[in-house]
Parts: sequence; structure tokens; C-alpha cells
Amino acid sequence: MSHPSFTSDPVALLQDLLRCRSVTPADDGALSVVAHALEMMGFEVTRLAFGPEGEQTPNLYARLGTGKPCLCFAGHTDVVPPGEGWSCDPFAGDIKDGHIYGRGTADMKGGVAAALAAVARRLEAGPLKGSLAFLITGDEEGPARYGTKSVLEWMKERGEAPDFCVLGEPTNPAEMGDVIKIGRRGSMNVVITVKGVQGHVAYPHLADNPIHRLVPILSDLTSRTLDQGSEWFAPSSLQITSVDVGNPATNVIPATAQARVNIRFNDLHTSESLRNWIGDVVSYHAPEATMEVAVSGESFLTDPGAEVEQLSEAVQVVTGRKPKLDTGGGTSDARFITHCCPVAEFGLVGATMHKRDEHVSLASVEQLTQVYLEFMHRFGV
Amino acid sequence: MSHPSFTSDPVALLQDLLRCRSVTPADDGALSVVAHALEMMGFEVTRLAFGPEGEQTPNLYARLGTGKPCLCFAGHTDVVPPGEGWSCDPFAGDIKDGHIYGRGTADMKGGVAAALAAVARRLEAGPLKGSLAFLITGDEEGPARYGTKSVLEWMKERGEAPDFCVLGEPTNPAEMGDVIKIGRRGSMNVVITVKGVQGHVAYPHLADNPIHRLVPILSDLTSRTLDQGSEWFAPSSLQITSVDVGNPATNVIPATAQARVNIRFNDLHTSESLRNWIGDVVSYHAPEATMEVAVSGESFLTDPGAEVEQLSEAVQVVTGRKPKLDTGGGTSDARFITHCCPVAEFGLVGATMHKRDEHVSLASVEQLTQVYLEFMHRFGV
Repeated sequence: MSHPSFTSDPVALLQDLLRCRSVTPADDGALSVVAHALEMMGFEVTRLAFGPEGEQTPNLYARLGTGKPCLCFAGHTDVVPPGEGWSCDPFAGDIKDGHIYGRGTADMKGGVAAALAAVARRLEAGPLKGSLAFLITGDEEGPARYGTKSVLEWMKERGEAPDFCVLGEPTNPAEMGDVIKIGRRGSMNVVITVKGVQGHVAYPHLADNPIHRLVPILSDLTSRTLDQGSEWFAPSSLQITSVDVGNPATNVIPATAQARVNIRFNDLHTSESLRNWIGDVVSYHAPEATMEVAVSGESFLTDPGAEVEQLSEAVQVVTGRKPKLDTGGGTSDARFITHCCPVAEFGLVGATMHKRDEHVSLASVEQLTQVYLEFMHRFGV
Repeated sequence: MSHPSFTSDPVALLQDLLRCRSVTPADDGALSVVAHALEMMGFEVTRLAFGPEGEQTPNLYARLGTGKPCLCFAGHTDVVPPGEGWSCDPFAGDIKDGHIYGRGTADMKGGVAAALAAVARRLEAGPLKGSLAFLITGDEEGPARYGTKSVLEWMKERGEAPDFCVLGEPTNPAEMGDVIKIGRRGSMNVVITVKGVQGHVAYPHLADNPIHRLVPILSDLTSRTLDQGSEWFAPSSLQITSVDVGNPATNVIPATAQARVNIRFNDLHTSESLRNWIGDVVSYHAPEATMEVAVSGESFLTDPGAEVEQLSEAVQVVTGRKPKLDTGGGTSDARFITHCCPVAEFGLVGATMHKRDEHVSLASVEQLTQVYLEFMHRFGV
């Protein structure tokens, strides 16, 4: 664990965070860096450990003031493993040629540091009008079961209800100002298992080939155009990610065949409507087949109204670029936050996230800090 | 190795053969039992070992006389592994309640013993009119690469050309007299490998899902009715025996997908015509896909003329039943023999072949011996 240097300088805070080896599910002091900074600014900080004894997920909720409106900054301090091939220490926070290197610079210790520094500057500028909150988890890159989701449940029980939330995930593909995310597609996984009757290929009438039932199922699933996209969403997409039988004998009809399907779906569907459709297809071709469904998240959309417009203005003022309002890409903790309050995502440039030599420019960290500060003014907090 | 008791009693010969543990590719003296019996009857016996040094396949060719016509008895002395769960020693040749037990009683040491005993009886009955030959291999249940196929090549080089061949595989499903096989379907295996471009499921436009190319290929292959059968053959059958991707990641589009296909085809197709059809289907949906084709054998049909009619009469005289002329089931060494001379298959009851407690009735072994003897008379040898 390293010791935080309280500051309104986001780069110094980011270096403190980068030097914690918080590879999910490890924390290594990262949340303490955040907690210390928040406490120094007067926040009431609650450390929240959820999950089974001995392997609990560390989380943090902090609140400053009780006035309305309440703006919440959300994020995570855990990172994905560094992997191989780095040209520098992934946990040193090295600065070189105007860039800061390390696992989590983009995803998303940089976003957390910028939010902290922005709040420090806001408090230096004068008394708060509304109130502020922070929801930071140590488990976003892992199973995310006892992270943001559990903190939101805890908040609900206590009547902690922010009016808007900004999540600092790296939303910009190439340059600061590219994209604000105002929603995400839903994601679900389906495992289809077809059982047949094993037999010899020379006597197919004595067997029931499960592959010959699975193929028309997969053909039907991939043939349907789910939709053409909607106002804010790209078309939904179904991908078969694996088909497995594992029968090495060329003269044997196997007993079982299995396929795995992932669907990224927009607001024209729900996991329920898709589950029903797939169930109909499966039972039409293979009445005895089984289906396991796991829903990672439903699709959601934050109304692109006043608050999103204020965030967009803040981005334009700081970066000189008008961000695209987008809902593409993977999932994030915003899928949980949306059930609590409207949420928008804006952070650093994600080009090197999850890769070796993850880095962001020092200028972008400063820009993000200014965007958050500008947004606080516009939001009225 | 056990020592043969030369006899015209097929059961005694069968016991000698059963007591050799000739689980393919082992011989354990089985061919010596056959060789000794043939030598005692005056055959010129040639032991033929083919294949790579150190793992050669033992085979045997024997000839008695040079006159026309020449009738050849073919068969194999290797057996499949006994497996578990026997109620007796699979290599003891136990007799109980009128049945003889052991691995290979039906498939096909019983057929070999009956042919030897029938020839012994024929020679006791008076001088040969034509001539006789035996082609016995120790590798029919294994890869069959250096077995009957190699002996036939050796025979061709030496001008050994029988006029007709009887192969003693267990052709009767339930009772003696059920079925004479006058042909076999062809068999081929095809491995189709589709390569795509790996990627994240959230960005399918940046990937190329090989499963989505393989599914329409498999759909087309299984949708076509190959034929309705022909005069002597059941309909051809295509079975997908495995589909394998092996991708454990639910958020990743895999790079490769593979399917294995087996086709049992009748005389309305050749492996070449089927290879061309599958090639067209594959390249239509996945131009970059690769295809490995292995042909186990083409389909063949022995003209159901005079010799088959004589064999059928012999079966009727002995069993009182008119056998069905059939081409169903798996492959046998007849697929090689057909390129040398016309071949028909008739043997014992195959109900317990390849299973635990393989057995045949003593009465059926005696009947088969009489059928072979009757056929020799009718064939004019």
C-alpha cells in the first residue's frame, strides 16, 4: 500500500492509485487512497465489504453534504492482470514524453483520480450548492457480484438516492471528446444442450443424432435479423461462441451436442423476450433439449435530456469537440446504476485498455478533471 | 499359443482359435492354428507379414490344387478387445447349454473354423474338382491397412485369381439363414475446418464468426436427401459425428470451427461425386475452409447371379430358410476382395458380436459348416 498525497492534481492521485497492485480481486490499498482523499475533503466515507466471509469484495461509498441535487461519481479501482510484454513496470506510474503508463491508467484509475481532483477544485472554488457522492468498487473487472450492485442495494436501504451519476469509464475510442455513453446494450448467454441417442453411423435409424437437431436450431437463430437498430442503439447481435460435441469416433453418432450463444441486445428486446424466442426455436427442433440462460444485464438508455446536455457542453467547452452520444461496446457497472438514477459515462481514451503498456496522456487526465469540474458547475452542485 | 487338433469338427477348431488371445493387432498363435489345419489337409500355406518393420500384420494365403473353378474362403482371426462384464473367460472357449462362448465366436473365428471343417469334409468325400484357397488376415478389426488389402496385391502379382470368394462374417442378425450379403455401402469421412477472424462479441463487425459459416454448411449437408435407395441398397446416409470449437470464453468470437461428417453411400454415388458435392457446399458458404476426405471404401455389389444363387440354395437346404440378399450394415474386407473376384458373405449369427459374453450355438456352427460344404458341391469344386 502506498500513501496518498492529497491534492487537486489528478496525476499525483493517479500515480498513488497505479502503485497499488489492485489486480481484481486484490485491493492492495487502492480504496484507501480514495478514502483518504475523500476524508481530507470532508466526505463521510463508509467502507463496505460484501460477499462470502474470507473473500469479500471491498467497496466504498462517500457523501459530502445533504442538499439537492446530489451528483455521484462512480468507478472502480480494480484492474485486469497486466499480462506480458510491458516496456515498463505496470505498477510504477512512470511518466514519459507527456504520458503516464500503468495498468488502469485508462480503465479506470485515471477516471477516479480526475473525479477526486475535480471535486477538490470545486471545493476550493466555494461552498457546494447541492451534495456530492462517490461509489467506488474493487470488483468491476471480476464477477461484479458483490461490487456496485451490492453498494446500490445498501444505498437504497439507507435512502441514499443521487439525482445523477457520472461513471468515469474510458468512453473515448481515440481522442478526448469522442463519446459520451448514455446507455448500454444488454448481454445474455445461453447454453443449449441437445441429448440424442448414441449409435453406429451405419444404423442411423437406431440412433437419434443430436447434432442433426442442433444444426437447424443454430440455423434458425443465426438466420433471424433481430432488428435494424433503434434511435440510440446499433442493431442487436447474436453470436454462437462455441459448439462442442467432442466425439473422436468417426463411426459413432454421439449422445450429446452443445452450443453456446451470446446476444448483445438493444432496447427493442428484453432478456425475457429473447429467452422466449430461443426457447420456442429449441423446443420446435429438439423438445427434450435443455437451455441455461445467464443474463449479464438488460439494455438501458439514459434520457438524453438536460443533464446529458450539460455533460456534453462541459466536454465541448474543455475539448472543443462535440461528443457523440452512444450506446455501443460492452457492458459496465452503469447497467446496475441505471436502476438507481440516470447515469452517463465519460472518461479517458480507451485505446490501450486491457493491453500492454496501457497509458494516457497527462493532458487528457487534466482535460477530464476540467470536464468534471465544468459539469459540476452546470449541473448546479 | 495353443496346438490345433486337426479335425473335421468345427467346434474343436473354434476352441483352439478362441484360446489364442488375438486381440487386434496381436496374433497369439491364431494364424498357426489355421496354418496347421490347412497344411494337414495338403494346402500350400504362405505366411505373409506386411507393414512397417516391428509392427507387421500377420496374414496367410493357402492354396490346394490348381484346377478351375477356384473357390476362396476369406476371413480374419483377430478380434476386438473383450471389454468388461463377462460371465466367463472370454478366451477359454467354454461350452454351456449348447452354446460356445468367447471373443470372436461370431466375429469371426467361428466362420474360419466352419470353413476349415467344411473343406476337411469335402476332401474326405472325394477328390477336388476345381481348387480351393484361403485368405486369412490378422488385421480386420484394426486399421486393415496391411491385411486383406495387401494379401490381394500379393496375389495379383502372382496371378492368384479365385473365381469366387466366400467371406464368413456374421451376416445373420437373429437366426441362421437370415441374410447373405452381396455388397456393402461405401463409407467416407470428411473433416471440414472453417477459419474465421477472432474478436469480441460486442464488436462482431470486426470479427468473422466461423461458426456462422459452418452452420449453413451443415444445414445444407443434412437437408439433402441423398437418394431413396436403389434395387439392392438402402438409402445413403450422412451423419455429422462431431462439431468442435472449444471456446470457453462467452464474450469471444472464436477463430476456428470444425465438423466431422461420415457418409454411408450406395451405388448411386461414388466418394468422388460426394466429395465434389460437399466441396461445392463448403466453398459456397466458406471459400477459405479446408476439407480432409478419407475414403474407407466405395460401395460395391456382387452380381446376384449363379454363384450367389448356389450359396442361397445351400443355405436353404441346410437351414430350411431362404436368405435375404442384403447390402446393409458396416464395412468389411469384402470391399477389398470385390476388386479381385465376386464375393458374397455368409456366416454365423452376429447378435452378440463386439459385446460381452459373445457366443453362438453349437448347432449354428455345424449348420455353417454344412452350408459351406453344400456350396462347394454346387459351385463345382
